[in-house]
Amino acid sequence: MQKVSPRTLSGFMELLPPQQIKIERMLSILRDTYASYGFTPLDTPVIESAEVLLAKGGGETEKQIYRFTKGDSDLALRFDLTVPLAKYVAANYAQLSFPFRRYQIGKVYRGERAQRGRFREFYQADIDVIGDGKLDITNEAEIPAIIYDAFTKLGLTKFVIRVNNRKILNGFYAMNGMSEKSSEIMRTVDKIDKIGAENVKQLLIDEVKMLPCKAENVLDFMAICGSNAEVVSALERYRGMDPTFDCGFDELIAVTRYLRSFGVPEENFRIDLTIARGLDYYTGTVYETTMTDYPEIGSICSGGRYDDLAGYYTDKVLPGVGISIGLTRLFYVLSEQGIISDEMITAPCDALVLPMTDDLSFAIASAAVLRNAGIRTQLYTEQKKFKAKMSYADRLAVPFTVIVGEDEVKEGVLSVKNMKNGEQIKLSPADAADHISRAVAELGKSTVIKEQ
Amino acid sequence: MQKVSPRTLSGFMELLPPQQIKIERMLSILRDTYASYGFTPLDTPVIESAEVLLAKGGGETEKQIYRFTKGDSDLALRFDLTVPLAKYVAANYAQLSFPFRRYQIGKVYRGERAQRGRFREFYQADIDVIGDGKLDITNEAEIPAIIYDAFTKLGLTKFVIRVNNRKILNGFYAMNGMSEKSSEIMRTVDKIDKIGAENVKQLLIDEVKMLPCKAENVLDFMAICGSNAEVVSALERYRGMDPTFDCGFDELIAVTRYLRSFGVPEENFRIDLTIARGLDYYTGTVYETTMTDYPEIGSICSGGRYDDLAGYYTDKVLPGVGISIGLTRLFYVLSEQGIISDEMITAPCDALVLPMTDDLSFAIASAAVLRNAGIRTQLYTEQKKFKAKMSYADRLAVPFTVIVGEDEVKEGVLSVKNMKNGEQIKLSPADAADHISRAVAELGKSTVIKEQ
Repeated sequence: MQKVSPRTLSGFMELLPPQQIKIERMLSILRDTYASYGFTPLDTPVIESAEVLLAKGGGETEKQIYRFTKGDSDLALRFDLTVPLAKYVAANYAQLSFPFRRYQIGKVYRGERAQRGRFREFYQADIDVIGDGKLDITNEAEIPAIIYDAFTKLGLTKFVIRVNNRKILNGFYAMNGMSEKSSEIMRTVDKIDKIGAENVKQLLIDEVKMLPCKAENVLDFMAICGSNAEVVSALERYRGMDPTFDCGFDELIAVTRYLRSFGVPEENFRIDLTIARGLDYYTGTVYETTMTDYPEIGSICSGGRYDDLAGYYTDKVLPGVGISIGLTRLFYVLSEQGIISDEMITAPCDALVLPMTDDLSFAIASAAVLRNAGIRTQLYTEQKKFKAKMSYADRLAVPFTVIVGEDEVKEGVLSVKNMKNGEQIKLSPADAADHISRAVAELGKSTVIKEQ
Repeated sequence: MQKVSPRTLSGFMELLPPQQIKIERMLSILRDTYASYGFTPLDTPVIESAEVLLAKGGGETEKQIYRFTKGDSDLALRFDLTVPLAKYVAANYAQLSFPFRRYQIGKVYRGERAQRGRFREFYQADIDVIGDGKLDITNEAEIPAIIYDAFTKLGLTKFVIRVNNRKILNGFYAMNGMSEKSSEIMRTVDKIDKIGAENVKQLLIDEVKMLPCKAENVLDFMAICGSNAEVVSALERYRGMDPTFDCGFDELIAVTRYLRSFGVPEENFRIDLTIARGLDYYTGTVYETTMTDYPEIGSICSGGRYDDLAGYYTDKVLPGVGISIGLTRLFYVLSEQGIISDEMITAPCDALVLPMTDDLSFAIASAAVLRNAGIRTQLYTEQKKFKAKMSYADRLAVPFTVIVGEDEVKEGVLSVKNMKNGEQIKLSPADAADHISRAVAELGKSTVIKEQ
């Protein structure tokens, strides 16, 4: 028979079991962390009406979206989890209680040009808090504090959540009479890391047509850096010149104060005036998160405050704040850097029960005892030689095998073998459960991410 | 501004938060149960090359599939999790260890005519065991035993896993010289519940062109029922007439014996000779699962043994056995029948901390204490009147509120209010964590499904 090649499309992540178990652990930590802060899980369809998804329109989105017809319907695959959230909140406004706190972890689709580390199908792990009419500033500190908690639980310590406020930028441009050119200026300033300050200044003068003194002002402003206290102190001299700036500055001060209250260490968040976030959608606090040792990766978690979540669908004013982890790319990058741990159990089971007798009753009953103790237990039932069975356990990197031969059945015990150190002991099923549980719990303490 | 209607496509399930929390609990129980038997999680792309998904071809599939092009690529959305599994095993054969045991819980897509209770996007929750060349018969008993465990954990007790063996049917048709007409006969016999035995007999004679005595034979055979022991005993008289029948009969006897060993009670599994499963793909044991009180719902969990998982992609002989729960439909049906429990916590949090002071430090620290004790804790920070805060807690059906006013801060205690019985007590943060944890654990004991 003519065979079809069993290929997976490029740009689509499909992992072997050990890697899949690692990313599942990450998914589970994110789910649990988000839930622990009182966010409710949401699950919206992958397919939506194209009209709904593209209500906002916009260039890049339209180009990248997977759009198709089925019967008379013009359909598309979601390209983020924010637009479906907006639709959901607008549609269910009367049934929801505000602030509405939801998390959603799901796959989104963007038909980007395929290249290493770029995915067309990828997981986003989002949290958002939506207010009805208004929303307290503390949320803008709690959101990055939750991200700090989540990353810490994943084992990441060397990361910085960079915080800025769009009102500070808008206010600064207003006080310099540059509001109209602000987005052009921001795009140019964004190149500072690549081409250097002097070249940016020249571009501002030549292409954005700014006066040299104004360009200087912009560069001086963007050059403000240092500890959070130092940045705040440097910003003080701009106060009183523009009400939007003052409002944003007060918000930034409040957010940094609350971030400390929420227990985020000073080294894990930093005021960074160069963070603007491309989307015109954000109106206040904005976030980007970078890994200290891998700045070239760019932001691994971004978001911010917006004033109007669902204006395309409803007249209700729904301000909110949200953040998103691009999990597929993060996992890819961490794997590439070799900082995904090899210590965790990646076998499908913690214990592999190997029956050596025809009657499986004792093996089956013992497997149930182990399982009831929370041990993932596989009963191996293929008719193979002992050596083949052990080699199966080895290949899967199963931490424990449990041998059930004639003698064990007679004595009512199990021969428990630690596959790492080779130690083999006879224990009653209950004691075996206890023994294995403790070892598995110990192995479970290792974090998914292990930084060098 | 012209608004776009925030609609969700028909045939796509999108739940309000309390219902979503219920189905998440079901998903989590299925994940944990599958994992506890040593199945490894798998996550394949939703989009595959159309050529790969349609390698087998076939009428219904081609009609229902979501298929579209992007650039030069002919793409399609997966319509089940079995074809992606076949592709995965064929593609990664050398890296996998056999028996390969995987579970996959994910959304699949079928553009069926939309009608009540029919979904175009729905969750399947599958387990499969794949052998390399051969696979022991015990797996054919373990698979339904795992389903018994999963349903029991969900709270379902009134269900029957119906078991048959395709070889018994094929053997029976062979011994009657009716092999060529077997699929036509099976389709006709399938109508027995609707039109009755006499009418089926007439159809077999008139349309399938069978001799009356042969039609009689078929109906006699299909009428065999009773306890598992009675069915086995009735089947004994067919033994020795066809080798395929004998083989299937031995397998059926082995499967029922092992089902007992695996602890599945006699009332939850039944030999049912009318089960054939439409797909020509199954070759041995087949399963369907029905709810005792709601037979009209049809099968809620089906599967069986197949000899050639991935013949369209590889020459390797990969026999397997698998089963699938259609979770979205099951949830819909259970909700319609009103047997999804109302006792479980459906609030986004277990405890809602209400700070009444400007300084949030003590409230934030206390929330962290609760969270560390495993309590899902939301800090409420909106500037609202006390009454509005309590009404928010009520609307969300939060089990506990934790009030942090001036007095509490001074005394270093929390006022913990049980929202169900109104009881309010002052406790240290650690004692509060203990108090709430115990109550939440008690509420967590209720199963998702509560049969009347």
